[in-house]
Amino acid sequence: MSTSSSCQSSTLKIGIIGFGPFAQFLAKTMIKQGHTLRATSRSDHSQLCQDLGISYFRNAITFLEADNDVILICTSILSLPEVLKSMPLHGLKRQTLFADVLSVKEYPRDLLLKVLPEESDILCTHPMFGPESAKDGWKDLAFVYDKGCRMLEMSCEEHDKMAARSQFLTHTIGRVLSEMEIKSTPISTKGFESLVQLKEVTVKDSFDLFSGLFLCNRFAKEELKNLEISFEKVKLKLLDMMNVRQDINDSNL
Amino acid sequence: MSTSSSCQSSTLKIGIIGFGPFAQFLAKTMIKQGHTLRATSRSDHSQLCQDLGISYFRNAITFLEADNDVILICTSILSLPEVLKSMPLHGLKRQTLFADVLSVKEYPRDLLLKVLPEESDILCTHPMFGPESAKDGWKDLAFVYDKGCRMLEMSCEEHDKMAARSQFLTHTIGRVLSEMEIKSTPISTKGFESLVQLKEVTVKDSFDLFSGLFLCNRFAKEELKNLEISFEKVKLKLLDMMNVRQDINDSNL
Repeated sequence: MSTSSSCQSSTLKIGIIGFGPFAQFLAKTMIKQGHTLRATSRSDHSQLCQDLGISYFRNAITFLEADNDVILICTSILSLPEVLKSMPLHGLKRQTLFADVLSVKEYPRDLLLKVLPEESDILCTHPMFGPESAKDGWKDLAFVYDKGCRMLEMSCEEHDKMAARSQFLTHTIGRVLSEMEIKSTPISTKGFESLVQLKEVTVKDSFDLFSGLFLCNRFAKEELKNLEISFEKVKLKLLDMMNVRQDINDSNL
Repeated sequence: MSTSSSCQSSTLKIGIIGFGPFAQFLAKTMIKQGHTLRATSRSDHSQLCQDLGISYFRNAITFLEADNDVILICTSILSLPEVLKSMPLHGLKRQTLFADVLSVKEYPRDLLLKVLPEESDILCTHPMFGPESAKDGWKDLAFVYDKGCRMLEMSCEEHDKMAARSQFLTHTIGRVLSEMEIKSTPISTKGFESLVQLKEVTVKDSFDLFSGLFLCNRFAKEELKNLEISFEKVKLKLLDMMNVRQDINDSNL
């Protein structure tokens, strides 16, 4: 999508692979920006596409033949290999920029390098927001490319390292809080309310996304371990205090 | 402090025991409300009190003789038994309302019932905010008593049960994130930023507070266990996915 910054006044023909909630969210903004959209996906989204003014292709071959300037990959992380395998990507008639918006970066880059014709351009992007967090607009939210939000360039490795410590960690804590079934209480502090909010936003995303953040980011395992070790440290500090302050259990006033 | 709601236009003589950051924060608002303040504490805060227009007593006996309508207990949870032990509370010349603002409730209630003269009134309160979260005012923040914010009445047991699942849990997660040394990244999502924020607010509070929330609330141990079990569950789900999706590790495209 970085190409759009070099042709500010022109519009692009953008083909979208995978038309789940995140693709729909992006599509609405891209339509407003005047681009022409077409989409294909494994589930049938023809009615929704018709409503939005997007050409929907059930057939991958005709989708690829539709003269796309950019093909935007919006599948789930876990389904990416299968989806790519099902498309005759070597039959592409023109040079195309492939951009993905997956939440891990080394994994799709490596897959795309493997399956795309050599002349294709690849842009690995990660919008750091979703339908929930950007419902009031993209402004100032980080995107690892597009105009209209804060743009950042980094290596896929750098991205994955940083995302494991931030996005994956956040999802893990959201899932743990969901297992605990935390709920607002009449005496919630602001801090606790932010955790309830975090839990609610996290579980709106699929478990497949969460699994993908873990399985397809080689830095995630280390951060999960880190979280576990840090929890153990805090627990030990509390248990130590329990020994130091035996008096409290004895209430020896 | 509930008495203030029955004498809206009158002002009170409020004696504060323990003059740390939280007491200072409350004092500033109570001064604005027109109350007369006096304080005593183990550390010397005479200069600060003079600046704020508060009478400072180094001596507990003269403090207790200063004709306080209300005595507000703002010590740390852990120092409460020692502080109470050091004061000749049975020498009180008048009926006094004792209100505490500690973050656990059964523990101070039981201690106060033990050491106060029988004719004293006891009000166990917990303002669900602090200097950080209420820097823009108390309005709509929960207090388990005072006017000007949302008032709630509940048993000490109910409070402690609820607070273990909310406030103690929040502090634990903040401490774990602090052990992990999480920091803002250029690609932070809103969710992750809320965790960074939580970490920063949490570590501004003393470790003594955190210990007190754990040691002096009989429901906290169970919630710590709950958190651990929930983390294990999430971890197992991820490891299960790793077995199910061996293909990802093998990259068998």
